[in-house]
Amino acid sequence: MPRWEPDARERLVCAALDLFTQQGYDNTTVAEIVERAGLTKSTFFRHFPDKREVLVAGQDTLSKLFADGIAAAPDAATPLEAVGAALAFAAEAFTVSGQRDLGPKIAAVIAANCELQERDALKPVGLAAAMTAALEDRGVQDLAASLAAELGVLAFKRAFARWSDSANQLELGELARQSLLELRAASAALT
Amino acid sequence: MPRWEPDARERLVCAALDLFTQQGYDNTTVAEIVERAGLTKSTFFRHFPDKREVLVAGQDTLSKLFADGIAAAPDAATPLEAVGAALAFAAEAFTVSGQRDLGPKIAAVIAANCELQERDALKPVGLAAAMTAALEDRGVQDLAASLAAELGVLAFKRAFARWSDSANQLELGELARQSLLELRAASAALT
Repeated sequence: MPRWEPDARERLVCAALDLFTQQGYDNTTVAEIVERAGLTKSTFFRHFPDKREVLVAGQDTLSKLFADGIAAAPDAATPLEAVGAALAFAAEAFTVSGQRDLGPKIAAVIAANCELQERDALKPVGLAAAMTAALEDRGVQDLAASLAAELGVLAFKRAFARWSDSANQLELGELARQSLLELRAASAALT
Repeated sequence: MPRWEPDARERLVCAALDLFTQQGYDNTTVAEIVERAGLTKSTFFRHFPDKREVLVAGQDTLSKLFADGIAAAPDAATPLEAVGAALAFAAEAFTVSGQRDLGPKIAAVIAANCELQERDALKPVGLAAAMTAALEDRGVQDLAASLAAELGVLAFKRAFARWSDSANQLELGELARQSLLELRAASAALT
């Protein structure tokens, strides 16, 4: 019977990031990660298929937050308003869980390894697919859903980069709101 | 003797695709590919780092066509007009080189293998990056360049899917032009 480890996933991510940063991604084993986290290998493999996926753990979480945020938007919301609601919803969760410190650490590990960069480049693809599906579930037509999702992912990426900059004083939610407005304006100017 | 004399790269792609289709991707070796193509392993490795990259060979070619098409657009062209010129330029090259038959074959091999699907999902990321850089070289501001590139990649993807459908009678260039207009209209409606 596995022990109930409520924060196991977060502990594994933090332990892995510390080790990747200190001794390199390639030099770190799952055995070392679980030892640092005070957990077992079987707990690790219940959460992640391999050590690479620890670095993209945020994608599943974020995809679900985006989808839930879109589903919870008022019926009358336009596609872009629903995307705005999703960004606000995700930003709130990220602010609570202390993701701000993790972002730059993860980015540094990924920047040092080609294989990881390839996996990382898939993150926005998965996030956009999750938002597109959630918008289509609201009855948004496929092209409009794809485009609104792309704007949402680009906006969140810009906002997250600004938020990770320690010189910035604004909350992630406000930065996401601003970024989406900028992208909307740029898109309107384009078409 | 084939009707046309493809260069080594094209011969390798055709040989690999035939073998992947007949006996499966995992069961095919580089040695078998070069034997089928009547070439040597060293020629193979001058063109591709591994057999997986054979399936995404089109990405580099297409990236270059998009970038060249954008660079060649008139100075007065708007970002979306430059993207339209790039799609037309790439469509012309694809039509000449007989890519229409390759598309469905490549898609079938990729659909049968998870590892390949991951790599395939990166294709649009690379294509969008190439278009964005080419637009920025024309002085287009970063947000507008990213958005125009996304519209261009989505349009080409839609057009290529329609073109690969044997029931379709239109040329790839015309399909790309129509797809970009549809995306532009959907984007305008959104914002």
